[in-house]
Amino acid sequence: MSDSREAGFELDPRLAHDTAFIADWQLCRVLLLDDARFPWLVLVPRREALVEVDDLDESDNTRLMHEIRHAMKQLRGAAECDKINVGALGNIVRQLHVHVVARRERDAAWPGPVWGRGPAQPYSPEAREALIMRLRSVQ
Amino acid sequence: MSDSREAGFELDPRLAHDTAFIADWQLCRVLLLDDARFPWLVLVPRREALVEVDDLDESDNTRLMHEIRHAMKQLRGAAECDKINVGALGNIVRQLHVHVVARRERDAAWPGPVWGRGPAQPYSPEAREALIMRLRSVQ
Repeated sequence: MSDSREAGFELDPRLAHDTAFIADWQLCRVLLLDDARFPWLVLVPRREALVEVDDLDESDNTRLMHEIRHAMKQLRGAAECDKINVGALGNIVRQLHVHVVARRERDAAWPGPVWGRGPAQPYSPEAREALIMRLRSVQ
Repeated sequence: MSDSREAGFELDPRLAHDTAFIADWQLCRVLLLDDARFPWLVLVPRREALVEVDDLDESDNTRLMHEIRHAMKQLRGAAECDKINVGALGNIVRQLHVHVVARRERDAAWPGPVWGRGPAQPYSPEAREALIMRLRSVQ
């Protein structure tokens, strides 16, 4: 379903550079961060000029929460997962985006946060494509 | 308004130890983290045995988002604030809790995340009380 409020949405080039496209949901563009250390989705509301969570109107905010729940379900269905971290930081890239990250108790940052943990380790093209397929298959 | 689903809610002792009480809102207990480096609220849904955001039912999830928005408003009204970070991690304390943190571009962790940044610097009792009063005064 198209929404006139999508007009003017443009993905920040840094987010585009670091991620692979998974899907456009009703509100958010859903991206896979290209870091094989952590199964990591990034949800970007397709609205113009948003920075903070509460720049969304309340109905989009409710929709965002719904899509965060769906992203959690997809991660659980597609990857090993002991805990899920959800965060909206935006200190570097200001365009509103929400991280939804599958954590394992033996991952490279456990139990610390995933942000600011040094350079990403890109997936091989095959591994990335396989994970994207698994994620998309979770309804 | 009391809710029977509050029965069995008990605040994790580590959260209790690190924070000061601000208020009970409809869903969440609202706490101030005792770290003068960052004006930092912690929202804890008063429900039993929750770990992940999507352990809440959808109506509580919508309510949580509403209370996150209100926490953001209170921080902006009570503290200097260039950006707000929102996160639900729970890697160490598993009881579901949401961090809502006012960030300044010259704060001790900028532009990195606030989590895992070494020991907290407690407020003086006077500064803590003054901040709590300012927070409570934002409707």
